Amino acid sequence: MPFEELFVPPQIAAATGDDAWVQAMVDFELALGRAQGLVLTAPAISPAELARAGRSTGNPAAALVSGWDEDGVHRGATSQDVMDTAAMLVARRTLPLIGAELDGVAAACGRLAAQHRDTPMAARTLLQQALPTTFGLKAAGWLMGVDEARDLLDAVPLRVQLGGAAGTLAALGADGLAVLARLAAELELEEPVLPWHTRRVRVAQLGAALAIAAGSLEKIALDLKLMAQTEVGEVAESAEGGRGGSSTLPHKRNPVGAALTIACAAGVRGASSVLTGALAQEHERAAGAWQAEWEALSRALALTGGAAASLREALDGLEVFPERMRANLDLTGGLIMGEAKRVTGKDVVEPTDYLGSAGAFVDRALEAHEERR
Amino acid sequence: MPFEELFVPPQIAAATGDDAWVQAMVDFELALGRAQGLVLTAPAISPAELARAGRSTGNPAAALVSGWDEDGVHRGATSQDVMDTAAMLVARRTLPLIGAELDGVAAACGRLAAQHRDTPMAARTLLQQALPTTFGLKAAGWLMGVDEARDLLDAVPLRVQLGGAAGTLAALGADGLAVLARLAAELELEEPVLPWHTRRVRVAQLGAALAIAAGSLEKIALDLKLMAQTEVGEVAESAEGGRGGSSTLPHKRNPVGAALTIACAAGVRGASSVLTGALAQEHERAAGAWQAEWEALSRALALTGGAAASLREALDGLEVFPERMRANLDLTGGLIMGEAKRVTGKDVVEPTDYLGSAGAFVDRALEAHEERR
Amino acid sequence: MPFEELFVPPQIAAATGDDAWVQAMVDFELALGRAQGLVLTAPAISPAELARAGRSTGNPAAALVSGWDEDGVHRGATSQDVMDTAAMLVARRTLPLIGAELDGVAAACGRLAAQHRDTPMAARTLLQQALPTTFGLKAAGWLMGVDEARDLLDAVPLRVQLGGAAGTLAALGADGLAVLARLAAELELEEPVLPWHTRRVRVAQLGAALAIAAGSLEKIALDLKLMAQTEVGEVAESAEGGRGGSSTLPHKRNPVGAALTIACAAGVRGASSVLTGALAQEHERAAGAWQAEWEALSRALALTGGAAASLREALDGLEVFPERMRANLDLTGGLIMGEAKRVTGKDVVEPTDYLGSAGAFVDRALEAHEERR
Amino acid sequence: MPFEELFVPPQIAAATGDDAWVQAMVDFELALGRAQGLVLTAPAISPAELARAGRSTGNPAAALVSGWDEDGVHRGATSQDVMDTAAMLVARRTLPLIGAELDGVAAACGRLAAQHRDTPMAARTLLQQALPTTFGLKAAGWLMGVDEARDLLDAVPLRVQLGGAAGTLAALGADGLAVLARLAAELELEEPVLPWHTRRVRVAQLGAALAIAAGSLEKIALDLKLMAQTEVGEVAESAEGGRGGSSTLPHKRNPVGAALTIACAAGVRGASSVLTGALAQEHERAAGAWQAEWEALSRALALTGGAAASLREALDGLEVFPERMRANLDLTGGLIMGEAKRVTGKDVVEPTDYLGSAGAFVDRALEAHEERR
Repeated sequence: MPFEELFVPPQIAAATGDDAWVQAMVDFELALGRAQGLVLTAPAISPAELARAGRSTGNPAAALVSGWDEDGVHRGATSQDVMDTAAMLVARRTLPLIGAELDGVAAACGRLAAQHRDTPMAARTLLQQALPTTFGLKAAGWLMGVDEARDLLDAVPLRVQLGGAAGTLAALGADGLAVLARLAAELELEEPVLPWHTRRVRVAQLGAALAIAAGSLEKIALDLKLMAQTEVGEVAESAEGGRGGSSTLPHKRNPVGAALTIACAAGVRGASSVLTGALAQEHERAAGAWQAEWEALSRALALTGGAAASLREALDGLEVFPERMRANLDLTGGLIMGEAKRVTGKDVVEPTDYLGSAGAFVDRALEAHEERR
Repeated sequence: MPFEELFVPPQIAAATGDDAWVQAMVDFELALGRAQGLVLTAPAISPAELARAGRSTGNPAAALVSGWDEDGVHRGATSQDVMDTAAMLVARRTLPLIGAELDGVAAACGRLAAQHRDTPMAARTLLQQALPTTFGLKAAGWLMGVDEARDLLDAVPLRVQLGGAAGTLAALGADGLAVLARLAAELELEEPVLPWHTRRVRVAQLGAALAIAAGSLEKIALDLKLMAQTEVGEVAESAEGGRGGSSTLPHKRNPVGAALTIACAAGVRGASSVLTGALAQEHERAAGAWQAEWEALSRALALTGGAAASLREALDGLEVFPERMRANLDLTGGLIMGEAKRVTGKDVVEPTDYLGSAGAFVDRALEAHEERR
Repeated sequence: MPFEELFVPPQIAAATGDDAWVQAMVDFELALGRAQGLVLTAPAISPAELARAGRSTGNPAAALVSGWDEDGVHRGATSQDVMDTAAMLVARRTLPLIGAELDGVAAACGRLAAQHRDTPMAARTLLQQALPTTFGLKAAGWLMGVDEARDLLDAVPLRVQLGGAAGTLAALGADGLAVLARLAAELELEEPVLPWHTRRVRVAQLGAALAIAAGSLEKIALDLKLMAQTEVGEVAESAEGGRGGSSTLPHKRNPVGAALTIACAAGVRGASSVLTGALAQEHERAAGAWQAEWEALSRALALTGGAAASLREALDGLEVFPERMRANLDLTGGLIMGEAKRVTGKDVVEPTDYLGSAGAFVDRALEAHEERR
Repeated sequence: MPFEELFVPPQIAAATGDDAWVQAMVDFELALGRAQGLVLTAPAISPAELARAGRSTGNPAAALVSGWDEDGVHRGATSQDVMDTAAMLVARRTLPLIGAELDGVAAACGRLAAQHRDTPMAARTLLQQALPTTFGLKAAGWLMGVDEARDLLDAVPLRVQLGGAAGTLAALGADGLAVLARLAAELELEEPVLPWHTRRVRVAQLGAALAIAAGSLEKIALDLKLMAQTEVGEVAESAEGGRGGSSTLPHKRNPVGAALTIACAAGVRGASSVLTGALAQEHERAAGAWQAEWEALSRALALTGGAAASLREALDGLEVFPERMRANLDLTGGLIMGEAKRVTGKDVVEPTDYLGSAGAFVDRALEAHEERR
């Protein structure tokens, strides 16, 4: 990924990179050893060497154990056991980092919802002013979107993989199921009912949850960039440290965080589509669809983290201009209050008099968010 | 969709078609009336007329109420309330039809798993024979995939939509939240915390669950068509009624159900990608992304149903040839038993002696499936 | 597709529907007959019956010839020859209809570019006012996008398909190549070097060209809806006949055409992704990927036509407000002219004095468009 | 991308990586200087620093010129001019590397087509043996697919970008068009009629051409892995250097190159979908869609190169087993020759007697390939 640090925070980039994968692969082998009563010591392993060696076997796990001294390394396992478990470990280690950024986004949305519970602004439908709403209600909607997406992410079961070459655990003889259970416990991953070498529902589910999370963040970013337009001017991302500026156009306050969020979300969608497309895998191990997952999963994780981090920054530093929101409401010279006048039967209605259940909705959202935590 | 009946069973096509949408829209208006103490009578409404009239407003709901006699029709609602609730009703009415086909697929997989719990066959990795497994274990894996996908489908909350033009329920005054609750109860849909006009997590989640369900079916279809190859010959779809035949090549037994399943799954993926891409909707109502959902959702539902129905037919009529499975195991002249010999230390090992936990895995799967029901 | 007429003009819907497919299939059989010296008469054929019968063979062509009286119908052909050639005929008959709408879009863009060659407005980057540009230059960019996309569409070769069951034309004996050439001539389709039963480059190319055309239209629609925002107010779609209005909010002027264009483009992308995903087809005829193409291709054609028609309407009726463009330029109180002052060294610079090559670019675009025709 | 070297040859990885992008960006600045009569010297620039600095501006070009000593660097240009031109340079430098691999694939297909022009094998439709064909005709079809895809790649115009902040070249005063023309000449890129900051047809076209190329390679890989199945055994990838082997299952000959090709193609499709989705960019410069292109384009290029390289290796080392092809033809006990008997009226027909125009088609393909070069 060119210019990765532009999009992805360093910690998340590291958690989804080469070294993190190799560490997870090593963790699998060590835990598999422990599950069979072996104490192993991993040699130094170079990701690039695994990759190069993998060109003749089709995956980077094949070369993993050649440098180990002890007997019994990898016993009962096949390459896909290593890679699939490593993928789940990479996910389990990255998801909390993404989660922390999502928490930050949700916290910021919650703050804005509470703070602007009664701040009137124009509701816009098809980008036309329609009726008054509040900025609090808009932010409450953002909050619910993040929470709903978060629930989907949290619901993805991360399961250990151990099946051996045919998914039967034959090489482990009568110990197969016991080793499987101990391995799951060692790695604190769920134990599957069956090996899932070619049953990729959980991988696709993770990809879909990431795409939905990124899309929920993109919705917020989209609203931000629309509200930040020169002609609308209702919010602006922080200008601290020259952020959002332009060397040749110093008057600009570009919605940089929103733009990066949107860019990341597009990338997550692309990566997630690879994972959905990889559900159809042949027989007991696939020739192609499986191998396509590693990069797609890494990228979906990294870019969802990037989307969340950029949006969190944007929201944390967001400047809100309630007076501009109020002024925009007057742009139509009262036309926007037409329905209000008709419904209430009054000749003069203030926007704040026609907010319906906006405040109550904000309260419901904040309550639901509290309960979720 | 040209030749829709080739892919989609008539009942499912009807449940996702024009008339079903209009019925759901009418049901919304009637229930909204009841929720406000009104007894309404719907006039005859032509889908095509709604569509034509919709070209000037951008959606088919705008023309819905023009022919109604009573006052108070549509009170408090906006076009998107109608369409979104209708979408959820269409989904709720179609999902059981899809579910029945998925039940049929699962039942067939379960039967095959139990019946062939101990039928040896070659496990194939990268399409090469690797070690022995059983057909029962393969079918048990299919079963788990369908169950996992089914759980994702069942987990999608289907929620009523009611927010009015700005999502504030302003036109309903103090009654807003009460009407919302009553409407949800009337239609037996969930009540949302907030209107979700531009928070499309649940729509995208439904699309993703459908794509994952279809992909799980495609995995089974892929295995079927590979096993049905002339050179493999381990299964065949039923030839009853000339099925799978070819006028010019009467010896053929084409895996027709598998092929249709795969074709449908591809269509579901395309439709689902539209729904994931529609998460970013502007402000309080979107100009484009929302309107893209209706067709995509209908098609994702219809084609998932089509995939399930075709695969159910294929599995229900499946002929299984255990003797061919056994013969294929011998194709490598015993090479496939190399690991078995090494691990067991014996010179001669029968495939049935090296099945590891295959049988136990089948039992676990059947148990998990029983518990699920 | 629910509410198809909302999105797709009737003529284009017809050209991509069931009856059009069956007509194209019949045209293939008649032309194949003529190419072999036979005069055939087609019986009445019901698309729904073909679809139903197709469930046992996996495609609707199998039942096509059962009702014909003459001998020799379909001689030498396989079902895929019928379907593939029909697909190309459907495309060839629909593309001019799409092309006429694209011509209309281009003509409107050209008119706007010429008319507003020197109308200053704010250039917006990251949705922030950056520097002055002209509306003419914006419209010239739209025009170039349509022309470039059009060239891609025009470049797709539409080829006849004839290979027989194995792609060898074996059933035609020594006449194979001659019949192939005559069939191509009869149908005015290109003759392929080889049958392309599982070489789908041209189908994917057509899908990609349609997605790019729709995306180019979406770019224009996106600009329109942004310019039509209440707070920007630089353009509005026609309000004739109540278009863009809202029953409850009569002050609104919704960018309906833009919204429909965007919705259609999303659908085209989804359909096109199915076609790209269908490139990998097995051996001499595929089990699934091929069957997925019919609906995807029909929909990609229909919705590209829908996108073009909706945008053409929007542009044909577009109201442009140059005074509002001018007023918006003043919103930043001159800040937007900062670069102009620095570069020119003057204290006061008018937007019209800092338009660089905008006018020349417009002229170049109009010239390039003229040359293209 | 984890384990990038597993999928992408080092040279192609380098050509699409961070350093290549920075080099291209520097080349733009140097050429822009020359186009204005300036001789510049680039300082050392770290990609990571550009990325980090870019987080506050939203792109890595903003920090590019801060370390340069000379005046006039970057004069008249905007960040997007740098990035877009750099993208085109990256493409122009990577495409020949991809092209060389595609040449290798085509050459191998051509060799196989010529060598096996008359080698009979079973044509398979829906994975069932249908009629005889030749391996030469299959390989000729592969060749045509690569050639057709190659033509699409070669047809993508790669154009320089120079428009300045508003796309008007205002900062260059009267010199704008002349500088644009000289810059294009300096960099040997095409000169566009207009700046294309938000007219992304050519970027999407490049993405589509890459996806189609990768899909054409995937078709070949799919056939290879099907033919290499244990039960089919008609081809095998080279076993040289342990390739395709398995540590635990030494009898295996995994179709590793085919699997990697398929995995790469899936990734290209995902990346290409991002580029198609990025066609709709706002106004004069986009907030998100543009920024999504850099990674997607790099990945589409790298993985298409990876797909081509893996397939080229697989084909170059391919072992072909004509006797097995012949034996497989007999598997149906002559049933496969049913049509042949009916059509020829003979009781006994050899497969080689019923190959129709297979040989002639091979000759046509080889001729067309020769003409193309």
